[in-house]
Amino acid sequence: MPKVAFQGEKGAFSEDAAFRFWRSKVSPVPHRTFRDVFESVWKGRCEAGIIPIENAQTGSIHQNVDLLLEYRLSVTGEIILRIRHCLLALPGVRMRDVRRILSHPQALEQCSGFLRSQKGITSVPTHDTAGSAKMISEECQKDSAAIASARAGQDYGLAVLKRGIENHEQNYTRFLVISKKAGSPTRSAKTSVVFSLKDIPGGLYKALSVFALRDINLLKIESRPMRKGPWKYWFYLDFEGALLDSHCSRAIDHLGEITTYLKVLGSYPVGRVIE
Amino acid sequence: MPKVAFQGEKGAFSEDAAFRFWRSKVSPVPHRTFRDVFESVWKGRCEAGIIPIENAQTGSIHQNVDLLLEYRLSVTGEIILRIRHCLLALPGVRMRDVRRILSHPQALEQCSGFLRSQKGITSVPTHDTAGSAKMISEECQKDSAAIASARAGQDYGLAVLKRGIENHEQNYTRFLVISKKAGSPTRSAKTSVVFSLKDIPGGLYKALSVFALRDINLLKIESRPMRKGPWKYWFYLDFEGALLDSHCSRAIDHLGEITTYLKVLGSYPVGRVIE
Repeated sequence: MPKVAFQGEKGAFSEDAAFRFWRSKVSPVPHRTFRDVFESVWKGRCEAGIIPIENAQTGSIHQNVDLLLEYRLSVTGEIILRIRHCLLALPGVRMRDVRRILSHPQALEQCSGFLRSQKGITSVPTHDTAGSAKMISEECQKDSAAIASARAGQDYGLAVLKRGIENHEQNYTRFLVISKKAGSPTRSAKTSVVFSLKDIPGGLYKALSVFALRDINLLKIESRPMRKGPWKYWFYLDFEGALLDSHCSRAIDHLGEITTYLKVLGSYPVGRVIE
Repeated sequence: MPKVAFQGEKGAFSEDAAFRFWRSKVSPVPHRTFRDVFESVWKGRCEAGIIPIENAQTGSIHQNVDLLLEYRLSVTGEIILRIRHCLLALPGVRMRDVRRILSHPQALEQCSGFLRSQKGITSVPTHDTAGSAKMISEECQKDSAAIASARAGQDYGLAVLKRGIENHEQNYTRFLVISKKAGSPTRSAKTSVVFSLKDIPGGLYKALSVFALRDINLLKIESRPMRKGPWKYWFYLDFEGALLDSHCSRAIDHLGEITTYLKVLGSYPVGRVIE
């Protein structure tokens, strides 16, 4: 079974995503940081990595957006997971015993409505959802609860105090699969690129025209700061179609004429949605 | 002196920004969350608010981007601050005593290079830079240090262990001033708008054309998820010029024809940069 790198502890949502993407025929390997995941794939210690890239409620996971630019790896797959957050605590702990709720800042934000309704409870940001569950279990913290997946609760012997505490039903996260070798999808595909623009009037308008002129559908656009000079940006674009399609490869050639930098992150099959 | 709401404890970078924007003729009022800042301005408890909107290294502060859409307040000013992070600890504490470094996740990210170089020290995310300094001071934590401003160190009686620990020299943060009453800038101005697009092919391309056709310079574009349906987006756009300029107001009229929602966040003078 392929070894696949993910960030977080056993029980993380990224581990779920790996099991779903490879239909359980996979051996997920926990890593401390997102950078460690990229490093592990780059060095060949894992065949692939799986990273969250965007949540439908809170937006992009910027560290991963930036790492896609930094590392010479290809995006080869996508999967979308409905994220269901649980409040987990040691067995026997009741809601009124809880003084602190631990989780990753993104998870705290996705459950902000629930947290605001809990008077006298402090929310404590941590590095990890499943890691928070693990910590409560290992340190036997009877006044704390963690926000994490139901599976994290099982993994660390915690009980579910409350289920489905996320703000919105539309709480989906898109995960990307990264590998050293680019894919060549034939069925319904999308392509991700990143570029920087020449400093010309209407530069972005001209960049988008290469797609508009060919009736290529844009799925997403996002800007991220370039670190060397303030208020200059990288643009990340997802569009329908694969590089193997001639109208897409011509659009990319055309785009190259008006960019100072252009990198194709990968073409990959449009991801399944797991409810 | 006008009362101005900011997020964080006394000593926060936002408080600095307020002092700089109003050239010290201001009375900054601390608030726990960004939402509290918006609420305070909306309810008239403070004449204005000041919020960080974007850091040149780590990108947008999304909570504030989202709150600008939610509240009917106007952006009336801008100021840009060079952010210099200090490592602060109780007087007498040496670097080798430090086991934990506390700060807001954005500050931890802006100092990630320094943090990676410190072996055996755990970084602990908190809600606040200045708040971390305050906590260390009040709880007399001798094994901890905080990442915050030099002024936070003075405010809470902490010594500076190390200065300028941010990753990049280009560590600038843009702050926006929000008020109930819109401004009407006459000198060099910019305008911020937010819109959603009709579901038509090349929609974004058409939206940008209203600016390109009038030679209006785009300064920034950003997308944020719409929460009700996954993978639909709000677009935030900054452009050169004020609504009072007739070519800008015509562009906005034109934009209204191809959007399903359009809100002008405000026209305001381009901000000073404080080194």
